[in-house]
Amino acid sequence: MPEIKRIPVTKVTDAESIEATDALAIEEPLEIRLEYVLNGEPKIQNVSVTMRTPGCDAELAAGFLFTEGIVKNAAEISKVDYCFIACAENKENVIQVKLNEGVIPNLQHSERNFYTTSSCGVCGKGSISAIRTVGVFNEQAEQPIFVNSELLYRLPGILRDRQEVFAETGGLHASALFSLDGNLLLIREDVGRHNALDKLIGAALTKNLLPLKNHILLLSGRASFELIQKAVMAGIKIIAAVGAPSSLAVELAEEFDITLVGFLRNQRFNIYTAGYRILFPVYENSN
Amino acid sequence: MPEIKRIPVTKVTDAESIEATDALAIEEPLEIRLEYVLNGEPKIQNVSVTMRTPGCDAELAAGFLFTEGIVKNAAEISKVDYCFIACAENKENVIQVKLNEGVIPNLQHSERNFYTTSSCGVCGKGSISAIRTVGVFNEQAEQPIFVNSELLYRLPGILRDRQEVFAETGGLHASALFSLDGNLLLIREDVGRHNALDKLIGAALTKNLLPLKNHILLLSGRASFELIQKAVMAGIKIIAAVGAPSSLAVELAEEFDITLVGFLRNQRFNIYTAGYRILFPVYENSN
Repeated sequence: MPEIKRIPVTKVTDAESIEATDALAIEEPLEIRLEYVLNGEPKIQNVSVTMRTPGCDAELAAGFLFTEGIVKNAAEISKVDYCFIACAENKENVIQVKLNEGVIPNLQHSERNFYTTSSCGVCGKGSISAIRTVGVFNEQAEQPIFVNSELLYRLPGILRDRQEVFAETGGLHASALFSLDGNLLLIREDVGRHNALDKLIGAALTKNLLPLKNHILLLSGRASFELIQKAVMAGIKIIAAVGAPSSLAVELAEEFDITLVGFLRNQRFNIYTAGYRILFPVYENSN
Repeated sequence: MPEIKRIPVTKVTDAESIEATDALAIEEPLEIRLEYVLNGEPKIQNVSVTMRTPGCDAELAAGFLFTEGIVKNAAEISKVDYCFIACAENKENVIQVKLNEGVIPNLQHSERNFYTTSSCGVCGKGSISAIRTVGVFNEQAEQPIFVNSELLYRLPGILRDRQEVFAETGGLHASALFSLDGNLLLIREDVGRHNALDKLIGAALTKNLLPLKNHILLLSGRASFELIQKAVMAGIKIIAAVGAPSSLAVELAEEFDITLVGFLRNQRFNIYTAGYRILFPVYENSN
């Protein structure tokens, strides 16, 4: 697997130590560049450098541009390809996204970003309203969806069984997309949790699955503001995290009527917002 | 505690659900601004916006500026203070660092950042050499230091006992600084692992403890490139992580002759680099 590097390591248990081989999750920088035409003039612009695990880089780039509000849909993208630049070490560490003719990227937010709004300086509430202005799936009329509590219990086990690189390295975050009846549709892993989700949403974007309004997003770790923000952009309505959410993650989920579940493990979970989408079994007397 | 927000939550176990209160780690944006004079002209510049847990913000700002190579030492900083701007929501979310007269910040790296070097585009090796040019404690002659394997085993337990906010919310990363004989000197927590370490290094910077060459840094989670980079800047020589390191974290530790230990839990750990600093007990016959 290309996401893994094997190195010699000394394993110490109690007072014994043995020489062994360990598998590490690979971390390498990726520069994401945009290529487009502005007022007849060709532009190439660096929009981000992120430390990521190589693999699914085209999805990562497309997903990042979409979840940051820089491109609006897959149709705006003409081509995604690596640029091979200088030394042997950096091959596949620069990826260029070419936009279709006439498409102007919305770089306002990538410069100022979601955290800073002109209206009120820097604040959590401001960060939340900034997303409302950029998200493309906010205003969609929604048909009610539901998920069974028992089905939620099963998801982390399905994720663990499939999270191959994690199992070996212990070093990767995962994002997984399930159908409402619990089928695993997509899984992406990365050393950065935001990258794992960008890869997942980029894959969904490429496959024309957006908005992901009839799906469940499972996060292998904690739920931060940034992850919920990306899920909002993809139109996701049900998010379950194995770890804890932050205060601002809960506020954002509340604002966009997203069902947010945390600490999903060992047949337990907490419901933070929009619990009405979770159904519980009713045990009836058969008489 | 100000780092915690209590909210109503539905706790689900098997098929039962109860209404309860849950404690969340607070996440709020912080804008870090620099104030300095360039060619007789006063400048105020936004250098970063980070999602962090409020508390120790002055340390976070100072630590960030130092570990990113923007300021070289505590003497360059004249004052760190909040700017209260517009709405009630954003109070204490903008912090301004005033530099002393004649101090010009090194913003080259904050614009290009460590991941991008002019010599070879974007690559892991390039990221590592960029740190060599900026770090102030790289070239120090070093007197040998050692740590006992048995002492390492004890550190995660000490961290857990003191990691109060984590215990309640499950949502915070921690960085802790120990003396070589296992005394806990500093601990900082945050929703962002890089922020927890910046707060810790900022505190050490303010207390004039740098370089931290006779110390052990304990990380509550995984060890990424970014965390090792910050530790390099502070002159730290022994790093122990409860979680897994990434490939680039190991390469960076190797390059700077840092002892890197991972998976430190349940009386076990792996040694990735510079194992010569770890001493094992020798059991001798008393005859």
